[in-house]
Amino acid sequence: MNDQTLFTDFSRIGRRLFEEHLVGGNFGNMSIRHNGGYFITCTGSYLDADPAQIVFMPGNGRVTPGASSEWRVHTAIYNEVPEHRAVVHAHPVHAVALSLLCGSEIAAVDSEGKLLAPTITVVDDAPGTQELADTVASHLKNANVVIARGHGTFAAGKDMDQAYLFTSLAEHCCKVLLYTKPWQKY
Amino acid sequence: MNDQTLFTDFSRIGRRLFEEHLVGGNFGNMSIRHNGGYFITCTGSYLDADPAQIVFMPGNGRVTPGASSEWRVHTAIYNEVPEHRAVVHAHPVHAVALSLLCGSEIAAVDSEGKLLAPTITVVDDAPGTQELADTVASHLKNANVVIARGHGTFAAGKDMDQAYLFTSLAEHCCKVLLYTKPWQKY
Amino acid sequence: MNDQTLFTDFSRIGRRLFEEHLVGGNFGNMSIRHNGGYFITCTGSYLDADPAQIVFMPGNGRVTPGASSEWRVHTAIYNEVPEHRAVVHAHPVHAVALSLLCGSEIAAVDSEGKLLAPTITVVDDAPGTQELADTVASHLKNANVVIARGHGTFAAGKDMDQAYLFTSLAEHCCKVLLYTKPWQKY
Amino acid sequence: MNDQTLFTDFSRIGRRLFEEHLVGGNFGNMSIRHNGGYFITCTGSYLDADPAQIVFMPGNGRVTPGASSEWRVHTAIYNEVPEHRAVVHAHPVHAVALSLLCGSEIAAVDSEGKLLAPTITVVDDAPGTQELADTVASHLKNANVVIARGHGTFAAGKDMDQAYLFTSLAEHCCKVLLYTKPWQKY
Repeated sequence: MNDQTLFTDFSRIGRRLFEEHLVGGNFGNMSIRHNGGYFITCTGSYLDADPAQIVFMPGNGRVTPGASSEWRVHTAIYNEVPEHRAVVHAHPVHAVALSLLCGSEIAAVDSEGKLLAPTITVVDDAPGTQELADTVASHLKNANVVIARGHGTFAAGKDMDQAYLFTSLAEHCCKVLLYTKPWQKY
Repeated sequence: MNDQTLFTDFSRIGRRLFEEHLVGGNFGNMSIRHNGGYFITCTGSYLDADPAQIVFMPGNGRVTPGASSEWRVHTAIYNEVPEHRAVVHAHPVHAVALSLLCGSEIAAVDSEGKLLAPTITVVDDAPGTQELADTVASHLKNANVVIARGHGTFAAGKDMDQAYLFTSLAEHCCKVLLYTKPWQKY
Repeated sequence: MNDQTLFTDFSRIGRRLFEEHLVGGNFGNMSIRHNGGYFITCTGSYLDADPAQIVFMPGNGRVTPGASSEWRVHTAIYNEVPEHRAVVHAHPVHAVALSLLCGSEIAAVDSEGKLLAPTITVVDDAPGTQELADTVASHLKNANVVIARGHGTFAAGKDMDQAYLFTSLAEHCCKVLLYTKPWQKY
Repeated sequence: MNDQTLFTDFSRIGRRLFEEHLVGGNFGNMSIRHNGGYFITCTGSYLDADPAQIVFMPGNGRVTPGASSEWRVHTAIYNEVPEHRAVVHAHPVHAVALSLLCGSEIAAVDSEGKLLAPTITVVDDAPGTQELADTVASHLKNANVVIARGHGTFAAGKDMDQAYLFTSLAEHCCKVLLYTKPWQKY
């Protein structure tokens, strides 16, 4: 991936996240693995900013000023899961809401969810903590998306498009569940 | 239809589908009948991509590499229903949700639905199967839209605009039904 | 109003109606009074089409080919209410849904509704009939918006912006009512 | 802040408010503190108008013709809270709805709400009154957002982006609450 494409990916996917209502305001953050470290959106920046407001986080553990305050999760994912090359953290409102009503897993009832993310793990660690970073990274070894209860989604994949796709998918699954409320049958 | 208009139709209608929240991410696919075969969006492409990412599927049954994995449904519709010249498959979330709550038919309660699609058939075949393709094509002989339960809409018409219109209409009908829940009266 | 502004008003307001999800697909229609008759969107055209797809309906009762099939309502409003100079017909989904749950009036519970449209009349005549046209025009003598049950809104005002505003307002009121369901208290 | 940036802030944030469905039609208003007074959107103008339709309100109490009819709230906030430099008033529909169901405070259940606005005060004064202006300004001494019951949000901050952010946040919190209805557990 050349640098120009990389920078464009931030704005392009950021715009889709905003238009799909997967993030609002300047919430959420995104990153792409690069040269032993990763580029990440700046704290307080709009994901759809063009040009992207991003900084480089080197692989040596040094924290670059301005990096999103959620950098711990991004660092943990890149350290733990070699195949993940991009991360999207968003606050899709139906995923957040459903995570407050469910247990430790969300089981999809729609076809796309059943195919691509049949169960989505919901974790309880607090935003900003190393515990959340470690837990999310651990679960993303065998999944592309995890939900932090009451907080939002962490999705990862081979590129920014895939991380976005699993963010969109998780929200789609959670909408279907909230609209059908299958648990009320029991 | 000249080729330029045909290519533009993909991006133009794809953009509307995305803005209306009838598809998210890179889900969904679209096709237009052409020269004994049809053009279809590529697997994993965004419906609003400009220029459109499409391939030509000839009428001889050969599958063009890159074609959407839902090509079986498109092929079956074009083979079975001569008057359909375009197909849109989308995942409108209210249609997906309602299809998980209803029987084999959805009866519209709004005026547009009553006029244009008074009952929408809901089919149970699994995504990607030849059975789904055959069932959908069979029902689209006498209708412009069918819902695959838990999966999404398949709409067809004389052009891409009409296929889009019936996708939008189906979601509108399903929203009205989910918001009013007339079945709870009984 | 010069002609250029008039044409621009169609696309400008049509785009807002689409972005606010007050219309989907190519549903809805709009008109502006002009030179003893009125300009109206063509049947099947997108409200946000640019340039606007419109035809002129003269005041002599002759129907111009291509005019929206809802022309009867527009004609009746311009004939009955001299101060109305623009009309917007849309299908806002919450207004449609609520109209299927309520009686002959919707009473707003939000501040904007209470101020600008404290009660919105819901009429029962069938789409496309002269009866609907007459009933809507009659109610718009003392109001800016009326809802046709299960069908949509008819809003009128001194210009296209005002007709759009009352469309947006009606949907806002109906959303608040559907989200709070005050009738369930009784 | 130079004047060019200031004018751009109105259109830029106004567009985001509209796209996020935090305002519809030409509802809502915005202002930025400037040179002993403040710039405010004109009554009836679209928040996303470009160039922005704004007038200057001097600090001497004189009301500039054309200023938003909600100027009393803006004046009171700038007089009472020196650190607030921008104000956004919007009508986010979930915040409006929830305010009609709750008491004098909304307690967030999502992480962002708990962190940035753990309780949001809901006030009862009527729109357009000096009482509303005084009450809102008083509460914004120790908060960035307040909800006027049945009416909408008043958010303030160090710049337009922060006022917008708290508007978006309040709606996000209220959506999560309306989707989870934690009060139904008791």
